[in-house]
Amino acid sequence: MITVLSGGVGAARLLRALSDVIDPSQLTAVVNVGDDLVLHGLTICPDLDTITYTLAGLNNDELGWGLRGETWRVMDELAVLGGEAWFRLGDRDLATHLYRSQRLSDGATKTEVAAELARRHGVTVRLLPVTDDPIATEFLTDAGRLTFQEYFVRHHHNVVVSSIDVVGAERARLSDDVRRALQDAGRVVIAPSNPLISIDPMLRIPGVHEILRERRDDVVAVSPIIQGAALKGPADRLLRELGHEVSTLGVVDFYEGLVGTWIIDEADAALAEAIRSRGVRVEVTTTVMADPVNAERLAKVVLS
Amino acid sequence: MITVLSGGVGAARLLRALSDVIDPSQLTAVVNVGDDLVLHGLTICPDLDTITYTLAGLNNDELGWGLRGETWRVMDELAVLGGEAWFRLGDRDLATHLYRSQRLSDGATKTEVAAELARRHGVTVRLLPVTDDPIATEFLTDAGRLTFQEYFVRHHHNVVVSSIDVVGAERARLSDDVRRALQDAGRVVIAPSNPLISIDPMLRIPGVHEILRERRDDVVAVSPIIQGAALKGPADRLLRELGHEVSTLGVVDFYEGLVGTWIIDEADAALAEAIRSRGVRVEVTTTVMADPVNAERLAKVVLS
Repeated sequence: MITVLSGGVGAARLLRALSDVIDPSQLTAVVNVGDDLVLHGLTICPDLDTITYTLAGLNNDELGWGLRGETWRVMDELAVLGGEAWFRLGDRDLATHLYRSQRLSDGATKTEVAAELARRHGVTVRLLPVTDDPIATEFLTDAGRLTFQEYFVRHHHNVVVSSIDVVGAERARLSDDVRRALQDAGRVVIAPSNPLISIDPMLRIPGVHEILRERRDDVVAVSPIIQGAALKGPADRLLRELGHEVSTLGVVDFYEGLVGTWIIDEADAALAEAIRSRGVRVEVTTTVMADPVNAERLAKVVLS
Repeated sequence: MITVLSGGVGAARLLRALSDVIDPSQLTAVVNVGDDLVLHGLTICPDLDTITYTLAGLNNDELGWGLRGETWRVMDELAVLGGEAWFRLGDRDLATHLYRSQRLSDGATKTEVAAELARRHGVTVRLLPVTDDPIATEFLTDAGRLTFQEYFVRHHHNVVVSSIDVVGAERARLSDDVRRALQDAGRVVIAPSNPLISIDPMLRIPGVHEILRERRDDVVAVSPIIQGAALKGPADRLLRELGHEVSTLGVVDFYEGLVGTWIIDEADAALAEAIRSRGVRVEVTTTVMADPVNAERLAKVVLS
């Protein structure tokens, strides 16, 4: 059994690659919910949805988010009405949010809803929101205090961040399922998601940091940084703004004490010795998953 | 200034006919919100929306509800996901509910949202929800206690009703705008809406009954019953099940003491004397508004 600490797109790709190599039912994704939002009365879980859509083969590669073959009737009309249309929600995607919102108001948990949606889409990887309690990643920036999606979507992460807050994290309870998935897995993988805004919100929930620290030898992390740059998103910029080294080394130090094995990209092979000197194992391979052959190779290294 | 106590479809048609005869800005609709519901996290106000869409010329005459040229992407997908798809919400219609739900969560009132949506649709009739407090019409039936839309849509009003409850009505406050619209109008019109489930929920809110009773001479009602039958919906069946006479006379008695002038259909001309004997004026005309010429004639009688 493998448990993968997961953000959105990068984690979804790794999970897809892993489930091409081993039985998907052997995989559990513990998924960040710090980006979740309530908009138009709807509860939206972007990371859970990205993973579900990707594993179902429904992800929209052109946009990099949402569903393929999507239409925009509702959003177009909402824009005409003068509503808040900056967070684009496709028509089919909206069905997911309507479904989840109704089930939550019926008393279901996010964990139950994630399982229902996965089942409907034929996804057999187990998807567990890291907590059923509300947590919210927020940013102190030169444009004021921003919610996650205000920062990420509305401002296109093009503001200077001075600190990141995860509201509710200290009081959030790890679900029993998540605790077991982290404690009992043969290996815990930290996906190449943004360390500061996808993984760290989960590390801040009481229990997660402690379990990884105890299991350090079984923890494998895939670096999200290649030659000082993130493949996608603001990880590199945020590392710099928050005082970390902008390289794989910066991420290694950020996760200090939690990771037994690092998987870094060939382009960063020169960093391998420096990382090993911190007392961890290092594997060097191609970490870019755009090509299916590379994705499979990476999956095999993660599992080896 | 004319104020119209309004349910959904019948009221919308009367308001449209009236606004073809006088300046629409002279018209105020005080609108039932007892049918409102929260579904999928969205706040839906069917009567307000029916009136707005009809006055904007966007109503779907084929369906008898919703918007013309509607599409169903979201609902079709929601059905695939196994969600609650019995209450059909079109894609463009959903934009209205998203808009309203977001504005309410921003702290706006239903009254403010109704005005915003009307303005966006170029509707100059003033639309006032009868109250900004939550009220909910519910039915005791042989299928158990049902919410309004469970009764009306899910069961197609094909169950036996033993009583109607309007939860929250006694504690609901008439907004100042509604109070003034009822007190200051030159004439108050009771639309040919369902007396028991569209008009009575408003009459149960403290103040409405009293104002109409005081102003009885200025109150004009259009009968929703012709030859013992409702044009649309379950008004006739409900009159019978709840022990009223199933005719215009039954409705006249239901509104006893509140109406100074009754407008009844030609087909019910034989009832005019019996109604007059109850001490009210009676006008006989065509009350069916399907034909624009008839609708205009009815509007002129209402205004005369």
